[in-house]
Amino acid sequence: MSNNKVQIFDTTLRDGEQVPGCKLNTEQKLVIAERLDILGVDVIEAGFPVSSPGDFTSVEKISKLVKNATVCGLTRANKKDIEVAAAALKYAKRPRIHTGIGTSDSHIIYKFNSTQEKIIERAVQAVSYAKSFVEDVEFYAEDAGRTANEFLARVLEQVIKAGATVLNIPDTTGYCLPDEYGAKIKYLKENVKGIDNVILSCHCHNDLGLATANAIAGVQNGARQIECTINGIGERAGNTALEEVVMILKQHPYLNLETGINSKLLYSTSQLVQESMGMRVQANKAIIGENAFAHSSGIHQDGVIKNRETYEIINPAEVGVNESSIVLTARSGRAALAYRAKNVGYNLTKIELDDLYPQFLNYADHRKEVNDKDLQHLMELNHVHKTAVNF
Amino acid sequence: MSNNKVQIFDTTLRDGEQVPGCKLNTEQKLVIAERLDILGVDVIEAGFPVSSPGDFTSVEKISKLVKNATVCGLTRANKKDIEVAAAALKYAKRPRIHTGIGTSDSHIIYKFNSTQEKIIERAVQAVSYAKSFVEDVEFYAEDAGRTANEFLARVLEQVIKAGATVLNIPDTTGYCLPDEYGAKIKYLKENVKGIDNVILSCHCHNDLGLATANAIAGVQNGARQIECTINGIGERAGNTALEEVVMILKQHPYLNLETGINSKLLYSTSQLVQESMGMRVQANKAIIGENAFAHSSGIHQDGVIKNRETYEIINPAEVGVNESSIVLTARSGRAALAYRAKNVGYNLTKIELDDLYPQFLNYADHRKEVNDKDLQHLMELNHVHKTAVNF
Repeated sequence: MSNNKVQIFDTTLRDGEQVPGCKLNTEQKLVIAERLDILGVDVIEAGFPVSSPGDFTSVEKISKLVKNATVCGLTRANKKDIEVAAAALKYAKRPRIHTGIGTSDSHIIYKFNSTQEKIIERAVQAVSYAKSFVEDVEFYAEDAGRTANEFLARVLEQVIKAGATVLNIPDTTGYCLPDEYGAKIKYLKENVKGIDNVILSCHCHNDLGLATANAIAGVQNGARQIECTINGIGERAGNTALEEVVMILKQHPYLNLETGINSKLLYSTSQLVQESMGMRVQANKAIIGENAFAHSSGIHQDGVIKNRETYEIINPAEVGVNESSIVLTARSGRAALAYRAKNVGYNLTKIELDDLYPQFLNYADHRKEVNDKDLQHLMELNHVHKTAVNF
Repeated sequence: MSNNKVQIFDTTLRDGEQVPGCKLNTEQKLVIAERLDILGVDVIEAGFPVSSPGDFTSVEKISKLVKNATVCGLTRANKKDIEVAAAALKYAKRPRIHTGIGTSDSHIIYKFNSTQEKIIERAVQAVSYAKSFVEDVEFYAEDAGRTANEFLARVLEQVIKAGATVLNIPDTTGYCLPDEYGAKIKYLKENVKGIDNVILSCHCHNDLGLATANAIAGVQNGARQIECTINGIGERAGNTALEEVVMILKQHPYLNLETGINSKLLYSTSQLVQESMGMRVQANKAIIGENAFAHSSGIHQDGVIKNRETYEIINPAEVGVNESSIVLTARSGRAALAYRAKNVGYNLTKIELDDLYPQFLNYADHRKEVNDKDLQHLMELNHVHKTAVNF
């Protein structure tokens, strides 16, 4: 694998589905898994097989269905979880078991009532056992974001020796700042024996609105896998959004990092997940929200009409959206009014535009948006004819 | 002003309101402005007075209403805009005029068809003219994110000489990565004559999902004002979310940066803005989304019940939310089931819990969520009595 390829590990069907009210049935999961495979993700985390009979079946059926991506199942660090995951992944072309344990003091003391040495022992046992079923074993150090770097490095060295191929460094609580998270990845790259033979993975949560930034800081410092979900869904404030990290890497070629994602399928994939889960993104969701490419202010609209690059850095077509939609409101300028009027068949002269504009503003002041029908009405009120001279 | 105070500049009523379909009437704007003042923001950008008669009236009435915060009006770099803004701000206790011009090549060439020297001249004239009306003049270098640092520094030195008190460095297109944006602020702090007598301000957009991270990188490198909106609303993918930056600074005391915001009012303020604008945030919106404090997976729920800090870093009460809501789904573990059962009056024994759990999973596999009524039904089906022994 080339050193500038960032693997996209999609966990929409596992961490993403852990959302109140968003449970999918097996049929829906299969449709999404197939789309993720076509989108070009490298790994599909299909579920947590031991957690329920429904999850087991879904992971098994996804394993049979998926053609290109690695299919991954989550486990805790115990034999039963690992055995059940291995059984669910039996038919996968490229199976991966994802096992791990909490490594922060908060987890070791409060959750496991254990010690650092015992945690390392359990981690190593889990990885070795998983390795007896599959070649590709990913280890997660839960709450790595709040784990001291020195201890984290000790755990990771031991699980690499036990055969782990990917090391997941989750900021489980979404607490890290990007410079901290980046520094943690850098420390691990520089201080863990054998680290260059495995892939470091970023798994970030959005509790403080930093999941995307933290994942990017991770790959800037040597990580080569990002765990993410379509639309950034997930428990609490969600996970890193797949569409955001993919477009960030694409828009910053100087980083020299690339993914295998076909970005033209981002919008339709986002819509599929929204509809399946009944979980709508907000209008201003980055990349795929309905307003992401809409421009309402006069200043901005004038700029966009003159040159798309002035205000938009992404060509909507690149993510599968048709055309920037220019929306008319009381903030819209003359250029936007002329542009939209032209779209509905009126080539306004400069004098007509000057006459019409204050009336348009009064009209717009009383409405939320001026649509094509309103515009038509406004033209008729002002006796503007469609045959007006071009300017 | 102490050097660790970060000013919160709220532009919900200006940049936030520039959203298709979100126009507010004057009455609604007054209600929000009053709430922002109580919330403790330092500056309220009330509108763009020259843009429409409705905007002028709103800025004028907000100026009369607001008791503590500075009230700010936006202008372009021309006399008429500035005169109209000054008139609208006449009654403000602390008026600020916010003027500026595009400084990137893209703006200078495509938007203004101008040259760097002429842009500096216009910037200086605008600041001087604004200064003839008010003491507090903020200058924005539009598209600073894509402006070469050397030229940006030259512009800023000249506007400081002309009397600017605050310098706004907007990443207008939402293009910057946090390390780049931070480095730009650092460069300006180190290379602009007179910079220590003014405040550097971050104004970031969320096109790539980085608006919050960029603003934080800005204050980590010397900026002392963040321009933001409630719920992160704004054109396209929106602006930096006020609630996110406030809680990040609060949760990272080692940064030694504080705001004047009363965080307990964040949730209710968010609700007010959502209702007024008809712009709902998604369930997984950080800090104030309905799922932000909900835990559905068994692993997480078990951890939260043992010790809230294991998975939640913010106590919901700190942002005005009542209690984490523990939602039951097919991902929920025994601990969550026992916890919720107890809430509705059943103290399950370990044996009862073991008996009930597989049936609960089957039940949950067929439903999106198991609510209190479902739980009651499940208990009755299984002949569990409310008088069960404690364990």
